Amino acid sequence: MPILVMKFGGTSVATLDRIHRASKRVAREVANGYDVIVIVSAMSGRTNELVGWVEETSPLFDAREYDAVVSSGENVTAGLMALRLQEMDVPARSWQGWQVPVKTSGVHSAARIQDIPNDNIMAKFGEGMRVAVVAGFQGIADDGRITTLGRGGSDTTAVAFAAAFGAERCDIYTDVDGVYTTDPRISDKARKLDRIAFEEMLELASLGAKVLQTRSVELAMRYKVKLRVLSSFEEYDPEAGTLVCDEEDIVESKVVAGVAYQRDEAKMTLISVADRPGIASAIFTPLAEAGVNVDMIVQNISEEGRTDMTFSCPVDQVARAEKAMTDAKARGDINFHDIVADKDVAKVSVVGIGMRSHTGIAAKMFDVLSKEGINIKVITTSEIKISVLIDRKYMELAVQALHDAFELEKA
Amino acid sequence: MPILVMKFGGTSVATLDRIHRASKRVAREVANGYDVIVIVSAMSGRTNELVGWVEETSPLFDAREYDAVVSSGENVTAGLMALRLQEMDVPARSWQGWQVPVKTSGVHSAARIQDIPNDNIMAKFGEGMRVAVVAGFQGIADDGRITTLGRGGSDTTAVAFAAAFGAERCDIYTDVDGVYTTDPRISDKARKLDRIAFEEMLELASLGAKVLQTRSVELAMRYKVKLRVLSSFEEYDPEAGTLVCDEEDIVESKVVAGVAYQRDEAKMTLISVADRPGIASAIFTPLAEAGVNVDMIVQNISEEGRTDMTFSCPVDQVARAEKAMTDAKARGDINFHDIVADKDVAKVSVVGIGMRSHTGIAAKMFDVLSKEGINIKVITTSEIKISVLIDRKYMELAVQALHDAFELEKA
Repeated sequence: MPILVMKFGGTSVATLDRIHRASKRVAREVANGYDVIVIVSAMSGRTNELVGWVEETSPLFDAREYDAVVSSGENVTAGLMALRLQEMDVPARSWQGWQVPVKTSGVHSAARIQDIPNDNIMAKFGEGMRVAVVAGFQGIADDGRITTLGRGGSDTTAVAFAAAFGAERCDIYTDVDGVYTTDPRISDKARKLDRIAFEEMLELASLGAKVLQTRSVELAMRYKVKLRVLSSFEEYDPEAGTLVCDEEDIVESKVVAGVAYQRDEAKMTLISVADRPGIASAIFTPLAEAGVNVDMIVQNISEEGRTDMTFSCPVDQVARAEKAMTDAKARGDINFHDIVADKDVAKVSVVGIGMRSHTGIAAKMFDVLSKEGINIKVITTSEIKISVLIDRKYMELAVQALHDAFELEKA
Repeated sequence: MPILVMKFGGTSVATLDRIHRASKRVAREVANGYDVIVIVSAMSGRTNELVGWVEETSPLFDAREYDAVVSSGENVTAGLMALRLQEMDVPARSWQGWQVPVKTSGVHSAARIQDIPNDNIMAKFGEGMRVAVVAGFQGIADDGRITTLGRGGSDTTAVAFAAAFGAERCDIYTDVDGVYTTDPRISDKARKLDRIAFEEMLELASLGAKVLQTRSVELAMRYKVKLRVLSSFEEYDPEAGTLVCDEEDIVESKVVAGVAYQRDEAKMTLISVADRPGIASAIFTPLAEAGVNVDMIVQNISEEGRTDMTFSCPVDQVARAEKAMTDAKARGDINFHDIVADKDVAKVSVVGIGMRSHTGIAAKMFDVLSKEGINIKVITTSEIKISVLIDRKYMELAVQALHDAFELEKA
């Protein structure tokens, strides 16, 4: 029988009633002829409770014990859903990460899946089991200790299972009903996409459209796993949600797929830096070591051997970035006159694989913003994305204007 | 280094603060020179919550999934205590049942420990680890699925570890400070025993002195594991609690160790049963099949081929017993004129290994009760115990009078 992977996040299994509803969806896919692998998160709130206990018990906790404690949340959900399915006469059983086993690296709390042997579960499918309910977010390291995968680990678990089992599709049930051309809270013209390419989804995910974790999309792209994002709170509809897939599977794609944004950015400028070989490394190495997530980088034209270096980072990392820079200056590693932080900026991006073969998208974007009187502070581009940094107060306006200009409300 | 097993029940680890206090006791024993194996229960209330979820999800639940869900409670406590110990600079780590592994039978929710290989934990002790915090109450079956041991399983886990590791002693921390000559709520002369023999403890446990689970005492007796029962809420005292040990380790033992009782008993009599070979089996087999816990049995002298058969059972099983008997009569398996239930009786027992070599204990017991005007309804005796069934209203009086008569308040 074809295999389907279904993943339910914490809000989709937050109560016994919701576990019941999720189980009904699983039972329907079994009736449709699939053998199903369900990946479950912990009941909403449980993981935070467990993490709170760990942090209160030991502020600088041993990540191995953290993993042993926190993984228990998913185990509870997996058992309960298996019971619920059995109650509906669907042959099901639960699997904890170590039982599969989901083999991971030994980096506790941020482990990476290395291998998922499929023989145990396939043998049970062969014996008539129809659903394997797997505790997501967890695995086992070489030394036999439990690991967790870190943020977004449940999505990644689901995609990795889909790859390991050659699943026909991986359905990610969440609290939104798909991927939109932009945030519906910002533009009421936002339209749900039926399909989106992996590359586009990756750019949108990394730009803050928090539907899918970046890592899970990367994995899906690498193994060509068809991902579907859909809501666990809507009525059943076989065509629901958004399919994230290979661009070849998108028959008619638009040039621009969506407009994304990141609200809480900051722009930092080092004024009058000595422009010499190795200066970029001297600046950005200490920033990386301080845990600053530098995004855009712009270097101005050099004048008389000095230049201004501008970069963006999340606004809550400004203090850390400033300290890293003044420390580096004090050590004599770099030299600059002043450091200026603009904490009131936001990033707006247009994303689309069609940009590869279409020109003029950047020009059109700049024209739209100009007509709205919005000044562009920094620009970066990739093959399928153009991003600009603008004053935060214009962010909504920019998103709406771009959404209109590229006619994203039209299918 | 010598090994000590310490077991903390649910109330002793009910909160992070109590886990902290329990950890301090463990750290003190490490400082005393022990390598310590700690067996922990789930935080008080957690197991009931998990059981409630299972029962609500699936009233006739699959015991394998029940075990997978319910065992998560102990895993959380084990991880948290390991973290707390590390925070106190004590090298510690947690072990879930399957990691040790605690090998059990496959009878889910009521599994029995079959083997505890000690090589994994001993190797860690050899590397400098000082405390292994083990999730109690659980193990792994041959098929790789998680099992739980059923009621009292944490005590049993502790004793089994003490046996497998040749521990010097197994300390059971609970919410009482030891074993008493009788229930202090009934007699204010009740005295805490410093030592008690395994056999006596077994009789007291099965008579409802709920300090230790019967199974754990049986196991300790078989493997000669010294058990100490003590309170986790009192100040540290190396001589605290009661030592349950081989009778050879009790230098001066009294003839009677304690007076026990069971309040909610019922006495049932089948009147005028046909007295023929096999009649006892014809009566007690259907009772056993109906789940009636028959305790005392008395058969009166036969007259003209008929006799009266009396037995005792818990008062809440009377209806079930009556139905089993009338059904058996309807099937023609047994024949009796009437069935009479006396629901207002209690059992009082005196227990002591000294009885083996002393005579006259029974006579003295009957004399004491007679002087108080208490009528004895049924008597049974074992090598180290004499039990009587009396009217429930005299129970406290009987316990107090016997405690006085055997001078149990004196050490």
